[in-house]
Amino acid sequence: MTNRDSYSALFHRLELNPPFSAGAAEDGQPPIDFGAGIPDFPVLPTADYTAAFAEVMASPQRYTALSYSAYPGIRELRELVASHRHVPVDNVLITNGAMNGIYLSCAALIDPGDHIAVENPTFPFALKIFRQAQAVIDPIATDADGIDVDAFEARLKAGERFKVLYTIPDFQNPTGSVLPAERKARLVELADRYGFTILSDNPYRDLWFDAEPAEWPQEARELDAGSPLIEVGSFSKLFGPGWRVGWIVTDRERVARLASFRRSVDGHTSGVSQLALATLLGRADGWFDRLLDAERALYAAKAATLTDALTDAFGDRIALRRPQGGYFLWARFAERLDPALPDNARALAAAHVHLVPGDVFHPSDSGTHTARLAFSHLPAETLAEGARRIAEALLGRD
Amino acid sequence: MTNRDSYSALFHRLELNPPFSAGAAEDGQPPIDFGAGIPDFPVLPTADYTAAFAEVMASPQRYTALSYSAYPGIRELRELVASHRHVPVDNVLITNGAMNGIYLSCAALIDPGDHIAVENPTFPFALKIFRQAQAVIDPIATDADGIDVDAFEARLKAGERFKVLYTIPDFQNPTGSVLPAERKARLVELADRYGFTILSDNPYRDLWFDAEPAEWPQEARELDAGSPLIEVGSFSKLFGPGWRVGWIVTDRERVARLASFRRSVDGHTSGVSQLALATLLGRADGWFDRLLDAERALYAAKAATLTDALTDAFGDRIALRRPQGGYFLWARFAERLDPALPDNARALAAAHVHLVPGDVFHPSDSGTHTARLAFSHLPAETLAEGARRIAEALLGRD
Repeated sequence: MTNRDSYSALFHRLELNPPFSAGAAEDGQPPIDFGAGIPDFPVLPTADYTAAFAEVMASPQRYTALSYSAYPGIRELRELVASHRHVPVDNVLITNGAMNGIYLSCAALIDPGDHIAVENPTFPFALKIFRQAQAVIDPIATDADGIDVDAFEARLKAGERFKVLYTIPDFQNPTGSVLPAERKARLVELADRYGFTILSDNPYRDLWFDAEPAEWPQEARELDAGSPLIEVGSFSKLFGPGWRVGWIVTDRERVARLASFRRSVDGHTSGVSQLALATLLGRADGWFDRLLDAERALYAAKAATLTDALTDAFGDRIALRRPQGGYFLWARFAERLDPALPDNARALAAAHVHLVPGDVFHPSDSGTHTARLAFSHLPAETLAEGARRIAEALLGRD
Repeated sequence: MTNRDSYSALFHRLELNPPFSAGAAEDGQPPIDFGAGIPDFPVLPTADYTAAFAEVMASPQRYTALSYSAYPGIRELRELVASHRHVPVDNVLITNGAMNGIYLSCAALIDPGDHIAVENPTFPFALKIFRQAQAVIDPIATDADGIDVDAFEARLKAGERFKVLYTIPDFQNPTGSVLPAERKARLVELADRYGFTILSDNPYRDLWFDAEPAEWPQEARELDAGSPLIEVGSFSKLFGPGWRVGWIVTDRERVARLASFRRSVDGHTSGVSQLALATLLGRADGWFDRLLDAERALYAAKAATLTDALTDAFGDRIALRRPQGGYFLWARFAERLDPALPDNARALAAAHVHLVPGDVFHPSDSGTHTARLAFSHLPAETLAEGARRIAEALLGRD
């Protein structure tokens, strides 16, 4: 066989995926891994999942589950998502998780050379999708409440134009910030005035600890056509990423076109998964609310444990806020403690602890001396022990 | 809200999906639907499916099922597919069905303006993917055994060049033809000589009635890099499309790049589905072979029933062969009986019977007076009654 190079230009410029989780240490001892954004698995009601699969397979709907299904999703699940997200059912498309939602949205919006404004810092897997589509990525300033709308508006007034604003509005990845209602409303106004579309990636929204985040302006969320807003959501953080079920909420016309396109991309989302989830979400006994309550309480307690442990260990050599929701804690270290510095990285690996240095979330900066720590999946004792190891590794060298 | 047009060029040129299944008749009576390529649902062992989901959820692997999984697929399922397809495990990628496999392969190979040779007739959903990628589609001649390799080679010798040859080698959709071993070997030689890649879409391969189709040359199927061959397969036709599980077999390097890309497209295939299928396929009691045997016998009998019924009704006014495998019967009618003619289409609708006129499978021809009839999902009595209605509708007007 001839060893030929048959790849498309896209595959020639394909990037490797950024590594978040820890590899095996040299001595084989697994590290405490603050890397991956995965749920606390024991909180997931797997016995209920089993019952839901059995219920679908025993019901007359089993052949609906096992056949080709409507491209935008099976009606029952679309209706439940529409109810959960407070929009009409025709504004909902079921996706294979949020990643699929971002990919499909990007295909719907972006031509090569289009500019996408993104929060600085932001989620690197989304940047990978945008770069694959040959978008130009423009980082925009953020503060403790997310996008600095004044600064962004000043850039628009100065003549900069964007096709898309990509934002993770609530419990932002990585910083955990929550975009206030007033900023959301202003961004929709700016989108209308300057003709860009807001791509709102919001997988952690339901996992608020103290207060539910504000919605985007409702009038933008239920349009027939021309909405300035595409909202991407997911059940991955609530029920487990292995379900591969998420959704898009946008105007009805865009839902119809996305459905036509997604037919070619992956057909549709598993009918078995869709109907099993619909069975669970549709339970009349408050099953979904009880699960959300349990997860919120669990993750809030873990967030507090890690916040306290890091604050105790580092004092004023770390800057952080207790997370208000989601899976992640964002920390800024004193400059010489930057976990990205080679000596510090080696010390962390030797202490068998892994976190994600913050530079990977910054489209253009380095030397940010920040890090993202996922607290979601680790037991409380492990969170405390992990914080102790990080402090030992970084401060032991101080 | 401003009603803006924010779509990408791709979404501006997006095609609607070709309709295969019947709509509701004017009087509301559902037609006998020879349209959709769906399984005979009662043959599917849904009680075993339920047991497999329960087994996964009760096992220590439940958190593997519910978490993010390796992009090329969960090892257990990759190994079972590798064994089924007689290739090394690193040559296997798990996909969200064959459609996803075609989409990912197209992204790996095609740049705008590249030429794709396709069988005439062929599967129109694949053509939609290729047109979305802005490929130039070149129909090539086929005969009763699939691609006419002499004619194809003559075009290559005359200077025509193709980036990809898209073929459905076995139980071709729509014609049911099976590409003989010798033609497969020659096509691989031509691919090597002329530098194109063969995209082999083979979802019906396992459903042979009398004889297993020949494999592509084994030396092309297990390469480390530069293979002339991408094979796309699926469990949809065996276990139900609602599982959304298929695979790609190609060289290891291409598998790795495809896995990196698909991370951005849809993440990965549902871990729950992957491990439930692995549980079923891995059963030591010959479960998979028994299911395949039952399906082969069932579909062979249905194919014979429909063949006989149409032959009895039409005599020499129809040309068809008894299908050798798969879901479809392909028929050529006398010209004035063409089901695509408006009067004939109306008569078929009035008789409450639906088939897919063959023109939709031809990239450039019309007036082929052909049709594709799916026999897979209809009971034997319904197949006979459907043939009777078709004859009444078309011959009643003769």
